[in-house]
This record gives sequence, C-alpha cells and structure tokens, in this order.
Amino acid sequence: MKIAVYGYGNLGKGVEAAVRQNPDAELVGVFTRRDPAAVKTLTGAKVFSASEVKAFKDEIDVLILCGGSATDLPETTPALAGDFNVIDSFDTHARIPEHFERVDAAAKKGGRLALISGGWDPGLFSLNRLYASAILPDGADYTFWGRGVSQGHSDAIRRIPGVKDARQYTVPVPEALEKVRAGETPALTTREKHTRECFVVPEEGADLAAIETAIKTMPNYFADYDTTVSFLTEEELLRDHAGLPHGGFVIRTGKTGLEKEHSHTIEYKLTLDSNPEFTASVLLALARAVDRLAKRGETGCRTVFDIAPADLSPLSPEELRARML
Amino acid sequence: MKIAVYGYGNLGKGVEAAVRQNPDAELVGVFTRRDPAAVKTLTGAKVFSASEVKAFKDEIDVLILCGGSATDLPETTPALAGDFNVIDSFDTHARIPEHFERVDAAAKKGGRLALISGGWDPGLFSLNRLYASAILPDGADYTFWGRGVSQGHSDAIRRIPGVKDARQYTVPVPEALEKVRAGETPALTTREKHTRECFVVPEEGADLAAIETAIKTMPNYFADYDTTVSFLTEEELLRDHAGLPHGGFVIRTGKTGLEKEHSHTIEYKLTLDSNPEFTASVLLALARAVDRLAKRGETGCRTVFDIAPADLSPLSPEELRARML
Repeated sequence: MKIAVYGYGNLGKGVEAAVRQNPDAELVGVFTRRDPAAVKTLTGAKVFSASEVKAFKDEIDVLILCGGSATDLPETTPALAGDFNVIDSFDTHARIPEHFERVDAAAKKGGRLALISGGWDPGLFSLNRLYASAILPDGADYTFWGRGVSQGHSDAIRRIPGVKDARQYTVPVPEALEKVRAGETPALTTREKHTRECFVVPEEGADLAAIETAIKTMPNYFADYDTTVSFLTEEELLRDHAGLPHGGFVIRTGKTGLEKEHSHTIEYKLTLDSNPEFTASVLLALARAVDRLAKRGETGCRTVFDIAPADLSPLSPEELRARML
Repeated sequence: MKIAVYGYGNLGKGVEAAVRQNPDAELVGVFTRRDPAAVKTLTGAKVFSASEVKAFKDEIDVLILCGGSATDLPETTPALAGDFNVIDSFDTHARIPEHFERVDAAAKKGGRLALISGGWDPGLFSLNRLYASAILPDGADYTFWGRGVSQGHSDAIRRIPGVKDARQYTVPVPEALEKVRAGETPALTTREKHTRECFVVPEEGADLAAIETAIKTMPNYFADYDTTVSFLTEEELLRDHAGLPHGGFVIRTGKTGLEKEHSHTIEYKLTLDSNPEFTASVLLALARAVDRLAKRGETGCRTVFDIAPADLSPLSPEELRARML
C-alpha cells in the first residue's frame, strides 16, 4: 500500500520510521505546509508542498494526517476525505461525534474511506473499554494515563511569563490503581487518580515563586491536581527529559454469577518509550485496514470500533487462525 | 436475541447466569444429553433433550455449544451449524484450522452463521496477540496462564490409581514475567514459564510416594515442569479449592524508531474468579455479534478476528463513539 504523510512533526516522523518496519507499506512522500526545500526527512523521503497534495490523488492509497487536534484536523480531515482515503488521530474526545459526521459526509460524497481517532487513546484504550464492558456488563472501568509526558500541559507551562522550557509528566496515583485492581469500584476524584510533575527551565532572573503559583493554580490544567514543580537548567532538561514516554492503564472490574459472587479484572497496560512512534505504529496498522476496506468498495467514516481485527494484520485469515488464535 | 444452551455443565450454567446480566438476551432453554427430567437448572430455565434440538430451529437466534473440545465439539458444531447460528469455545489450538473448515462448510450449506473458539484463550488473548503484533511488527509476544485451575491437568491426576480427587493450578514464574516485561525477549523453555501445583486427595491406604512420582513423571502434562504435590483431605480440598479461578497474561514487547531505539510493552492481564462464568460472558457478547451478522445475511464460519468490536456491544455506534472512544 502506498502511504503518504500530511504534516511532518513528531507523529509524521513516527510514520516515516514505521513504514520501514512494514514490508507491505511504501512511503510516497511527506506533505508539509512549510517550504518543502527547507524540510529534510529522516529517511530521505520526498517532501512536497501541502498545497499540491490533490495532484497525488491517484498515487496514494492512504493519506495519514499528522496534524494537531485543536485546529488542524477539524479542518484538514473533512477537507481531504473526499479525495483520499485518510486516517487521523483526532483526540478531542468531546468533539469526536461532530468530527465523525463531517468526515463521514465528505468521504461518502467523494466515494472514499476515512478512519478517525486512531492511536492509543482514543484507539487501543477505546477498544479495551468496549471489549471489557461488553463482556462484563455489571462493572466499572477506569482509565489511567502515564507515567508520561503530556504535550498539552508542557505547552501550557511554556506560555507562563518567565518560563523558557518545560516538561510535564502525568502520573497515576498507585493507591488508586490498587483500589481499582482490587475490584472495589471506587468513586475517584480527578485529584485521586493522577498527580502532575512539572520540570521547568526559568528565564534568567525570573520569579520562581510566581511561576510555581501560576502553574499550581492554572484552571483545568493543574488546579484540580496535586502538582509538584521542580526548576532545572536547560542542560538538565535536555539530558534527563528529552524523550516522549507515555502509557497508561484501562482496567475494568465486574461481577458474574447468580448472586454476583465472582469478581473479574481485565487490565490493559501500555508502557511506551515514544508516544509519537507508538501512535504512528497504530496508525500504520489501521492504514492497512483502511486500504483493504476501500478496495472492497466501502466508503464513509470509520473508527477502530468498526474494524475487524483481522484487517489490521499482514497475515492471511488462514495464517491468523493457525498461528494466533 | 433468543439464546439456547447445548450442554449443561459449568460453562452452560455460566451462560444461564450471564443471560440475566444482558437485557437484550433471553434464554429459550437448555438442551442436555441426560434425561431432561433429571436436570434442574439454576434459574428455572426449561430443559429439553438434545435429541429434539432441531425442532427448535426457528425459535433460537444463537445456539451456544457448551461441550468439551476433546470429543464433543468436533462432532457437535459441524452437525448443528447447518440448522442454527452457533458459537463454540473449541480450544484445541492445533486443530482449529480443521475445525474451522468443517464448520464453515456446514454453515454455508445451511445458510447459517457460526463462530468458533470464543472465550479468553482462544478468544480475548488471541485478539491481543493479533492487535499487538500488527502494531509492533519488530517484537515478540508471550502468553502466560494462571494462577488458575487447569481442568485437563486435574483430570489427568484423577486418573492415577489411588487418587480420589485433585486440583491442579498452573502458575506463571514471576522471574519470567519480569524478564518479558523488561523487553528482554528471552527464549523461555516450558519449565521456565510455568510451574504446576497439585493438591491431591488420596484414597485410604494409597501409596503417596507412587502417586507423587506418577504425577511428576507424566509426559506432556507434568514431566516438563517444576511440579509440587501436596496431599490433603477431601474436606480441605472442598474448603480451600472449590473455585475455578484462572487468568493470565499476554505481553508483547517491540521496538520502534529508525535505529529501533525505543521499546514498548503492551500487556493484557485477566484475573478471573470463575473461569467458566467469564468464558460464558465472552460467549454471550459474541452471540450478540453472531445474531447481528446473521441478520445482515452473512453465512459461514467466523472467529473473534473477524468481528468488528462494535458488534459485541449493546450500545449503538453513535453511543459508542460518544462514550467509549
């Protein structure tokens, strides 16, 4: 399948790397809104201007949209879904229904297939919420994130006056995890589920106390959490916090039996060295499915919930049954 | 959907209980090869003779086959797949391809839909092997079972002369689990992955040393494992080992990045108080999917790999996207 990347940031680079691990995929190139001459790809993949993407309509099986969910994807995905089979990793959970409707309409109109909200959350975590809740209807599920770098929270700290750079880790509270695993189905507040660790490089002469207060009292981002703030040098940040690790847990506990006398726990856990590379790897498996569904003549928008697992694998149905079932 | 149970052992009883947790399911009855008058169901469900099942052709949406994999299902599933939409939990991994072909032919001939090898392994564990390997092609996966009761191994002990009753637990070796989680992709022998704990009630005057030797040297079942044997009274067995807990782990570790410099771990873990009730709960979710696919006019044999996750859930696609994605 011929893959192209639209938007060449961390996620786009992850797709570029992932293509090399999947012999059935080939990278047509990378489309960027920057000057193509100024963009150098990791593997020597060709770079094109985003403005000329539609000229490649017939040369791309699946276009992977690697923009951000805040402003890029709500525009880009519907705009391109009429001309390409597309995949995105739209992750603003509350706006998924509306994004789905717009992409579905565009894809149907153009006779193309789209898949939105691929990745691990939404994505693999969503799948686990669905499977576990279908199997254990009398139960509760919990999603914990981390320990990992939240780009949104790191950006929020960087916007505070006096901050030169910052890295924020989301950390699940071990006691909350243990309660959930024990089947206690606790009602957990935001504060009880996660803590936030902030590593901040201040500008020279900045007011550290003011920065710390600005972080800890920031509504939505930090005010509802137990937050710790550590100041460090730029060298220390680069040395100790250069990576983008992430991960988390989806845990469902539920009861069965005539008297609900038996407890069960289903736990799914990801531990990721590189959030963008792992997300890209999920998108590439989904691209395989999108390519297959499109070649079967399907059109419109899909999510991970609509994809039969077999369509993600390069193995044939016979091989899958013989080796993996 | 109208469900019926064929074979009323632990699994059949689990399905009977699970139906009460799923408002969209209704239990037509239980079919048994025993004298129906001698079978009393847990919930007062009707009992019919297995020999008259075909008279119920038009009254059952999905027939759940609850026989054993050794001798029952290889006969029963193909024999009934032409007249009913059926599900089984056939778990002899090596014989799945052949079972699939026979059931597929029968179901296609009768215009019905079948799903084989539902449950958690094969089943949920298979799904996790597939998803994880499609996402991390450069990696290795490992399946560990337990701590849990293996019925097959318990039965094998009971066949030894001088043994009145027995319960065998399969236990994953913690050090092996830790090596796998650490991404070391170790080559593990059978002995390094699991130990076996046997609790044996001897007949009066039995030769305990001979029983212990017979267990520990039994080929396939115990000879390749570190096995411990404890003798106890029947009362102790009933008091401390009455349940059928089980569970296990599917772990895949893999690398991404141009130099494969990033490691990732995907871990799926089940902790089950009741193996048959949990398996039955999986079968009921799969029955929902089978019913839907059959009503769409699909025929032939399927496995969990072929089922789009959305079809397992009682929620609509819109609800799933809004609440679980």
